[in-house]
Amino acid sequence: MKVNGRHYRTVWLAGSTVYLIEQNLLPFEFKIHEAKTYQETCRAIRTMLVRGAGAIGAAAGFAMAQAFLAKADTAKAKKEIAATRPTAQNLFYAVERVYNSRAPAAEALRIADEDAESCRKIGELGNSLIKSGMNIETHCNAGWLAFVDHGTALSPIYAANNGGKKVFVYVDETRPRGQGARLTAWELKNENVPHAIIADNAGAFLMSRGKVDLMIVGADRIARNGDVANKIGTLEKALAAKEYGIPFYVAAPSSTFDKNCQSGKDIPIEKRSQDEVLYQTGPTKHGKMEEILVCSPGSKAFNPAFDVTPAKYITGIITEKGIVKS
Amino acid sequence: MKVNGRHYRTVWLAGSTVYLIEQNLLPFEFKIHEAKTYQETCRAIRTMLVRGAGAIGAAAGFAMAQAFLAKADTAKAKKEIAATRPTAQNLFYAVERVYNSRAPAAEALRIADEDAESCRKIGELGNSLIKSGMNIETHCNAGWLAFVDHGTALSPIYAANNGGKKVFVYVDETRPRGQGARLTAWELKNENVPHAIIADNAGAFLMSRGKVDLMIVGADRIARNGDVANKIGTLEKALAAKEYGIPFYVAAPSSTFDKNCQSGKDIPIEKRSQDEVLYQTGPTKHGKMEEILVCSPGSKAFNPAFDVTPAKYITGIITEKGIVKS
Repeated sequence: MKVNGRHYRTVWLAGSTVYLIEQNLLPFEFKIHEAKTYQETCRAIRTMLVRGAGAIGAAAGFAMAQAFLAKADTAKAKKEIAATRPTAQNLFYAVERVYNSRAPAAEALRIADEDAESCRKIGELGNSLIKSGMNIETHCNAGWLAFVDHGTALSPIYAANNGGKKVFVYVDETRPRGQGARLTAWELKNENVPHAIIADNAGAFLMSRGKVDLMIVGADRIARNGDVANKIGTLEKALAAKEYGIPFYVAAPSSTFDKNCQSGKDIPIEKRSQDEVLYQTGPTKHGKMEEILVCSPGSKAFNPAFDVTPAKYITGIITEKGIVKS
Repeated sequence: MKVNGRHYRTVWLAGSTVYLIEQNLLPFEFKIHEAKTYQETCRAIRTMLVRGAGAIGAAAGFAMAQAFLAKADTAKAKKEIAATRPTAQNLFYAVERVYNSRAPAAEALRIADEDAESCRKIGELGNSLIKSGMNIETHCNAGWLAFVDHGTALSPIYAANNGGKKVFVYVDETRPRGQGARLTAWELKNENVPHAIIADNAGAFLMSRGKVDLMIVGADRIARNGDVANKIGTLEKALAAKEYGIPFYVAAPSSTFDKNCQSGKDIPIEKRSQDEVLYQTGPTKHGKMEEILVCSPGSKAFNPAFDVTPAKYITGIITEKGIVKS
């Protein structure tokens, strides 16, 4: 998608160098990181310079290709790459595919292209749900930054906007980490999609006043029964959407379905550091990055990172293969 | 209630001086402001050094008494005091009562005592809903800082805790202004009530996992049909509580009922500055207060300050006169 009017992917391979958008600097600085060796690409994955299932998978595939191109010990490299993030399914899949390929670089490029293409397809299919003039709410960042290109929840919005439909997006800021306020807003601004950031608290209010016509979110994992694990707060929005009769869609590549997971009850919920709630980081008006305390000193916080939205609250799941009704 | 182990009210009169907790410095600094003249008390109200319906009303009553004590032009003073905040019902009521009294200082003290007493009574009645071992969620700050003492939503919690019941409080941080994370957490810590701050997004998740037994919130205005206007995000919690069968109570003095208001549809919703969403202020680890940008530069925010929770989602309203079932 576009950044300052120019097209980018989140991660790409040119020669034997992997290029990655430094996502940990966004939205305050836009910078491309060059990883010249597979070890450097591993470091980029480990330090979360690149994030999001699809983008991590592509980066891992490229890292494996780099090991082949450098004639390194590829079995050792495979282990190292697989160990960069403990639970990233796409990462293991990509490393395995490239490792077993007879043309590793081509295979890695193919994985990245497939990710971009399935997201593009999600956009095309999801676009059919969007009418011109709609107000759409989204939660967290399921945009192109989490994939190689296009994204999932935002892909239908980009397809609609680029196709000339008028859309307006309410962006949940998505506390505690603020991926909506920081990444989704940044994406939408660069794609010239009209939008406003809202406090997460404002969602139900807007729905109750008829200000939201459609809600689209991403997914971290989808159980066999259609329950969806996604960023904390997704469940609240789904409940509000149900109450006010607003279509609530999940957009995710079919690889997000976990066949080993019968229902949402089987999905463990990560508890993250309380510091994500207690502190906030950003630039002062002088442009200096500062971390500040935003809570009462000495109080503790509890920080579950995901929640599970039961299938019964979900209108449908938009995948690259079609829209599955819940 | 207690601050560092000592008892305080939010505002009090001694001699002809009004003393006020500087609420705009909390939770990072605890300081008492001395207003020696009615004009100085007016300034404290205007600059929101004192906030909350009950506390503002008491401060306004004291200001009116100060004008009498100083033998000032009391008609002029009455106008000045009434103009400090445009929509504070308690303020007009208190000024009028003191102005028409034959013993202005005694009347002003009485107003403050009545406020504290009705909040204490709310605590006593609300305490009957609390069983030892309960987890209670609350939104925003309906604590003693918003009144003269005890508070509303937090008053039953203080009564339970002081009476030896074990309670644990989940404090919604309450974006964008963070009154939960800042003021409620500060109050609870000073009263030794076990608690954890949560991102507003985490409420429905905790409810879905059986972690919340009771929710109590305050109210800014209550319509004749029982619809409640309160801090943005209250509606989301009420919807989640209803879904998971969790009792959802509103605590407010009976003066919060607006007889001129038929239903929630008649309550105008204040839209506040987008800067409350875009920026956050707090101390760095070096103790320096800084304002930082927490959103993507150049994106706008939309900031409704209140929402309306329909009566059908409210289990009951705890007033000083009894608990009204919705």
